[in-house]
Amino acid sequence: MRPGIQPYLLGLKEIIDKKLLELLPNSSDSLSKLEESMRYSILAGGKRLRPILCISASEAVGGSLDKALQIACAIEMIHTYSLIHDDLPSMDDDLLRRGIPTNHSVFGEALAILAGDALLTDAFSLIAREGISNVISPTVVVEIIRDISKAAGSQGMVSGQAFDLALEGKEVSVELIEKVHSLKTGALIEASVTSGARVGGANEDQLLQLKCYAKYLGLAFQIIDDVLDIEGGTEIGKSRGADARKNKATYPALVGVERARKMALELTEKALLALKDFDDKAGPLRDLAFYLGGRKY
Amino acid sequence: MRPGIQPYLLGLKEIIDKKLLELLPNSSDSLSKLEESMRYSILAGGKRLRPILCISASEAVGGSLDKALQIACAIEMIHTYSLIHDDLPSMDDDLLRRGIPTNHSVFGEALAILAGDALLTDAFSLIAREGISNVISPTVVVEIIRDISKAAGSQGMVSGQAFDLALEGKEVSVELIEKVHSLKTGALIEASVTSGARVGGANEDQLLQLKCYAKYLGLAFQIIDDVLDIEGGTEIGKSRGADARKNKATYPALVGVERARKMALELTEKALLALKDFDDKAGPLRDLAFYLGGRKY
Repeated sequence: MRPGIQPYLLGLKEIIDKKLLELLPNSSDSLSKLEESMRYSILAGGKRLRPILCISASEAVGGSLDKALQIACAIEMIHTYSLIHDDLPSMDDDLLRRGIPTNHSVFGEALAILAGDALLTDAFSLIAREGISNVISPTVVVEIIRDISKAAGSQGMVSGQAFDLALEGKEVSVELIEKVHSLKTGALIEASVTSGARVGGANEDQLLQLKCYAKYLGLAFQIIDDVLDIEGGTEIGKSRGADARKNKATYPALVGVERARKMALELTEKALLALKDFDDKAGPLRDLAFYLGGRKY
Repeated sequence: MRPGIQPYLLGLKEIIDKKLLELLPNSSDSLSKLEESMRYSILAGGKRLRPILCISASEAVGGSLDKALQIACAIEMIHTYSLIHDDLPSMDDDLLRRGIPTNHSVFGEALAILAGDALLTDAFSLIAREGISNVISPTVVVEIIRDISKAAGSQGMVSGQAFDLALEGKEVSVELIEKVHSLKTGALIEASVTSGARVGGANEDQLLQLKCYAKYLGLAFQIIDDVLDIEGGTEIGKSRGADARKNKATYPALVGVERARKMALELTEKALLALKDFDDKAGPLRDLAFYLGGRKY
């Protein structure tokens, strides 16, 4: 890991956390149960990887942090909605997430479903508002909404989760695992990067290269997450071996931890190669690739 | 009821149904289970009130049916998502909707939740695409997305459902019932009308008047729905007295069927009054108000 990345990540995380708090609904003196439930999962933490990628991609093409911040937070809200719904009893039935009780174990199933629905819907509202206030041109905003909704919808994240559930307990190939990964986590990671790039004013070449970067990064990230699940990392806050107990096919379970780690490093190299035409402003994106692809914890 | 409204409604419904089928994902030779589940609830029917209102509002200010059609269908997808989630065991726990088994009774809870999530997300994709292809100007599209997401999110439809669940079995005032109605169904009905009006090129005065129309119409519509639930109408396809059995407070339950019907007619008059500056192009909106406010079946 390069020396500068930890403070960079922590600094951005702090800015994102503060902005998320501002953006969450707070309609009256006392929060409604729905608002409490939304807030609970947003404030439950996480690395804020997607919003950081969005902001770093914007900066890589010369954009400002300020301009990308609200879009970045909206993406984190969509990610959080997906975690709340994935954890539900009828889905992965998880009681813990990031080391604390999942939304439905605290607020009940109905409010957990509704909090997810509201986070997803409000996210699009926040993105649209950036176009109405002309912080970002409406022409760019509609492209961002198309990118994100495509990545999150029936041809992206939601279908990834549907596949994942359908494949539980079944024998699957490496190719199929990669497909599920690319739908379930890869698509939104890609959209985080392209959204940021669009905000920053990327040209078509840059967009393509950043998309390529995001694709490899997303795969590497997921493989390492699955390795950490086997090795018992605490960072993702679920109990060790959770995937194996649920009979979920993962890359390291199929090819072994060592080969999986090697694969993640190769993917990281490819992600870095995609950035070869970028100057120093892409430093954070490069550091992020190193950081995510080689994590040991 | 005026003579022309039934054929108008049926004609539009046919056009909307056809377009919805085109817009639903169909990614390969054989549909995925997720796509099947989305399709099932969309094709389960319904009056298509929201898309019809969207198109009629557009026509009222001189817009074309073609231009409003995709936005109208996207709104119906959002409405359908809300029905799928409302019917879930942890929410209203309904086995029948529009006379046929609810989504989760056919596909299971997980796929029902995911189908709802996908319909909601894909809807925003379809709206954004109208701005990218410049069928509608991106400046108008971001306003439409803001209107619809605000109406559907944590300050609209989702909070209405959260309130509704929280109030089950409790004594509530007429004011509180109206508040829940206006959030749960009124907000999206209003957004259907304002979205159509924006597509059609409405000016600020027209927008305000149409919003006012939609507000009264939405309340009248909900009151009549609740009256029909007590009187045993078959149109909404749930068993007679379903609300009462669930201990849901409704307007007619509180003030009686007769006063509720009178109230609905008064609201209909107010809706019509809001249209007084509009010419004959608002004929369908006027007919719709008569039709919805005075329904006997």
